[in-house]
Amino acid sequence: MPVNAAGRNIPDEIAGRPIVPYQGAFATTPSGRRVGGPRKTIRPGQSKSTASLEEAIRKAGVESGMTLSFHHAFRNGDLLVCQVVDACARLGIRDLRLFPTALFPCHEPLLEHVKSGVVNRIEGSLNGPLGAYASRGGGFTEPPVLRSHGGRWRAIASGDVHVDVAFVAASCADSYGNATGIQGPNACGPIGFSAIDAQCADHVVVATDHLATYPALPPEIEQGYVDQVVALDRVGDPAGIVTGTLRIPRSPTQLRIAQLAVDAVKGAGLVKDGMSFQAGAGGVSLAATDFLARDMARRGVHGSFAIGGTTRFLVNMLREGLIGAILNGQAFDTEAVDSLRTNPQHHPITPGFYADYDSLGCATYMLDFAFLGGTEVDLAFNVNVNTHSDGQLLHGIGGHQDVAAGAGVTVITIPTLRGRIPTIREQVTTVSTPGEVVDLVVTERGVAVNPTRPDLADDLRRAGVPVCTLEELRAGSERLVGQAKHPALGEEVVAVIQWRDGTVLDVVRKVEGWT
Amino acid sequence: MPVNAAGRNIPDEIAGRPIVPYQGAFATTPSGRRVGGPRKTIRPGQSKSTASLEEAIRKAGVESGMTLSFHHAFRNGDLLVCQVVDACARLGIRDLRLFPTALFPCHEPLLEHVKSGVVNRIEGSLNGPLGAYASRGGGFTEPPVLRSHGGRWRAIASGDVHVDVAFVAASCADSYGNATGIQGPNACGPIGFSAIDAQCADHVVVATDHLATYPALPPEIEQGYVDQVVALDRVGDPAGIVTGTLRIPRSPTQLRIAQLAVDAVKGAGLVKDGMSFQAGAGGVSLAATDFLARDMARRGVHGSFAIGGTTRFLVNMLREGLIGAILNGQAFDTEAVDSLRTNPQHHPITPGFYADYDSLGCATYMLDFAFLGGTEVDLAFNVNVNTHSDGQLLHGIGGHQDVAAGAGVTVITIPTLRGRIPTIREQVTTVSTPGEVVDLVVTERGVAVNPTRPDLADDLRRAGVPVCTLEELRAGSERLVGQAKHPALGEEVVAVIQWRDGTVLDVVRKVEGWT
Repeated sequence: MPVNAAGRNIPDEIAGRPIVPYQGAFATTPSGRRVGGPRKTIRPGQSKSTASLEEAIRKAGVESGMTLSFHHAFRNGDLLVCQVVDACARLGIRDLRLFPTALFPCHEPLLEHVKSGVVNRIEGSLNGPLGAYASRGGGFTEPPVLRSHGGRWRAIASGDVHVDVAFVAASCADSYGNATGIQGPNACGPIGFSAIDAQCADHVVVATDHLATYPALPPEIEQGYVDQVVALDRVGDPAGIVTGTLRIPRSPTQLRIAQLAVDAVKGAGLVKDGMSFQAGAGGVSLAATDFLARDMARRGVHGSFAIGGTTRFLVNMLREGLIGAILNGQAFDTEAVDSLRTNPQHHPITPGFYADYDSLGCATYMLDFAFLGGTEVDLAFNVNVNTHSDGQLLHGIGGHQDVAAGAGVTVITIPTLRGRIPTIREQVTTVSTPGEVVDLVVTERGVAVNPTRPDLADDLRRAGVPVCTLEELRAGSERLVGQAKHPALGEEVVAVIQWRDGTVLDVVRKVEGWT
Repeated sequence: MPVNAAGRNIPDEIAGRPIVPYQGAFATTPSGRRVGGPRKTIRPGQSKSTASLEEAIRKAGVESGMTLSFHHAFRNGDLLVCQVVDACARLGIRDLRLFPTALFPCHEPLLEHVKSGVVNRIEGSLNGPLGAYASRGGGFTEPPVLRSHGGRWRAIASGDVHVDVAFVAASCADSYGNATGIQGPNACGPIGFSAIDAQCADHVVVATDHLATYPALPPEIEQGYVDQVVALDRVGDPAGIVTGTLRIPRSPTQLRIAQLAVDAVKGAGLVKDGMSFQAGAGGVSLAATDFLARDMARRGVHGSFAIGGTTRFLVNMLREGLIGAILNGQAFDTEAVDSLRTNPQHHPITPGFYADYDSLGCATYMLDFAFLGGTEVDLAFNVNVNTHSDGQLLHGIGGHQDVAAGAGVTVITIPTLRGRIPTIREQVTTVSTPGEVVDLVVTERGVAVNPTRPDLADDLRRAGVPVCTLEELRAGSERLVGQAKHPALGEEVVAVIQWRDGTVLDVVRKVEGWT
């Protein structure tokens, strides 16, 4: 069993196919050409309207064993995936591979279809119950493959994953297949995640609950790639896009971490005119964004752009002129969707633009700094975002790898304890993002600086930011709560964590209990 | 020599390669998959800036015999093509194939490079001097191939034409390669013509005279496809985008044709709520657009969208709520560019969206009617837009084929005489658009209805529109000016007219004089 460049033991092959172990964040060079979709033509006047999902599935030629793809712009409000798989089940189709960008707790009903064999493989983020199910082992004929946003785009464009039929939930579409998530009464935010599916899949079905007059603008998915349009009662509930409370947290620990994170990037000289950053929608990120905005306003600093998982906090920064543009991959509240509709400087982007390793540069490569979270960090600065310390697979990678690899300074914000579970560990349970692309780990008890960045350590010390080592943080937690427990893991690989270039960064193994 | 479905004699092969003769407007079905560009990657921090065009050409690895592509969004104001070819000449590169979307009179200096062998082939529209040069024969090692906007997109996406290096003139770009023609002090309108070049070419160079802060929005050309960015003093003069006078003509003949054209589409019941249309920028089209707008305003008719070659006449219709959206492939005045920047219902589109035969539907397929011009029409309703009646190749196809094939009712507006030259002829000199996709020919002396559309003839007669036959129009002109003269044409094929599906619709032959 080879050890990869992240120090992880990786099987030689998975599900009977050889794998390429992770070789370093930018070690591989792609070759060959991107794949293209099938060349098709239609005549003027030819209708694409299909009356029902079942009919669409029949017309698309879905057969047992095929791969069906979906986006997750509705997040926990998605109503399409289950409808499609239900319909496939009614049609007697089996052994499907689902290839969503991500599944959420709302997709728990899929478990019945997994158990009955309608679905036997899933590649995509498994947030919640499906991830927990995978952790128990034996649930799928091949272990789920988890990829970052950019990694999934690359997998399709490179031909690694062939999509037979792409299903695209659209809050607004016209009868010719132009589709968007930015318009319509149930607007959910950009659906450009599916753009690569639409371009490369053998067949494309747009499903919408709001048929608009032609042309539906902006066409995030373009008519020329769409075979069928099916109108459904509902394809998603935008209430589900809201992640967490979307409020500044009151927890002193979280507020202290957020303040230290801002102090750190200030200390590193990064908060200045023209700066760019990414911040997510977790409590600490929101608080950090808020502290950052206040500091910028006070000092008259004008940033160039921010990338988000966008919330009203970023929208307000754009409105106030603190940043010049938002590049928006996902919307996390309705204010973000409204702003996308009305402000030309708030621009929807695809994962290809944002994060594709096989491209001549991503938006994340232009970031000065980024605030990211994690469930665990280890002494080599490796970050786990996928599993909990009990070994359960409960989260996807999202853009974590893509942002960490791209940002000039990657800041992981993490409390040293979650309940009585220490987060700074000898070794993370799962490596989701390798330490070589992590610069700072900010906790309530101090900031650890990756030894590869002595420049940053000097800057932070000069700025009075409390610098410490990860070992100090780990030992401190141990003094408080005792030695960290570890899950007992079996041999069975229950999920594969790909690095954004398609190599295997780590595997998740079956959870058998606690040690 | 086979006769194709448009009744034209076509050689079996051209430049040593077999050709597929035209088989009908929608007769061919594509197979296989679209091609993709090379998979490449870069690291964060890697610069794309190149100091000069010569350095960019060297870095791009341009060699003798390669194919270089360009867009024509600056139209007669383009300053990039000549700079690139001049630089190639200085570097000793020869035998280039130029693959512009279109060349204009401003590109006449290229003739020196053609004569000296720096350029030995051109595929693209040849407006003016380069077309006239081609007409004389012997100028190129292979005859120029003319394609419609959609046809050129298809040729790249299908792999028919491989672009070695794409050069993209941008009125605004950032240092990472995001590029647009809608922003910047010299904004020229959409540059999406080059989007397919950028996606498929082996190497992509963006040239700009306005470097913007990252991110340049909207990125019509995306960073991920761009190898190099080179800043030049000027890449184009937007004054050159203005075609003709852009004024309503005063000529009573032109005004009568415009009025009859509007009467005809009204008579056919097409001017009603939800309608869609395309109108160009020629004098008759502008007048027809104006008459149409006034009629719609008077009767409270609200159309859904218009496609343009966009001018202030369409922009005003959008502002006044007479149409709900403009799909904009090219801008023909600065008002159109301003509107693109500010009105989300004025949407830039690519030729892929607008016109690609190898797609699941183009915007032109959604048009209720379209006003198009021509230099000649023949008794089979074939339209010539490429050559004059003296045989000279002076114009490109533009979107003529794509619009005619798509629109529900295709209206050709044409005066029966140009000077003393009759335009309604036994046979057109060149078939640019086959009669099977033409419905009405509107002249100052009446409207001819294609016999394939008896429904339209009935509607028009009922509405009091003067219906006549093309033979009547032809004979009428002959009575006025005598029999039409014809050029003496040699055997040499000096240009190939492709139909939008890549089949050969006609060839242009060497002009040897007048009969």
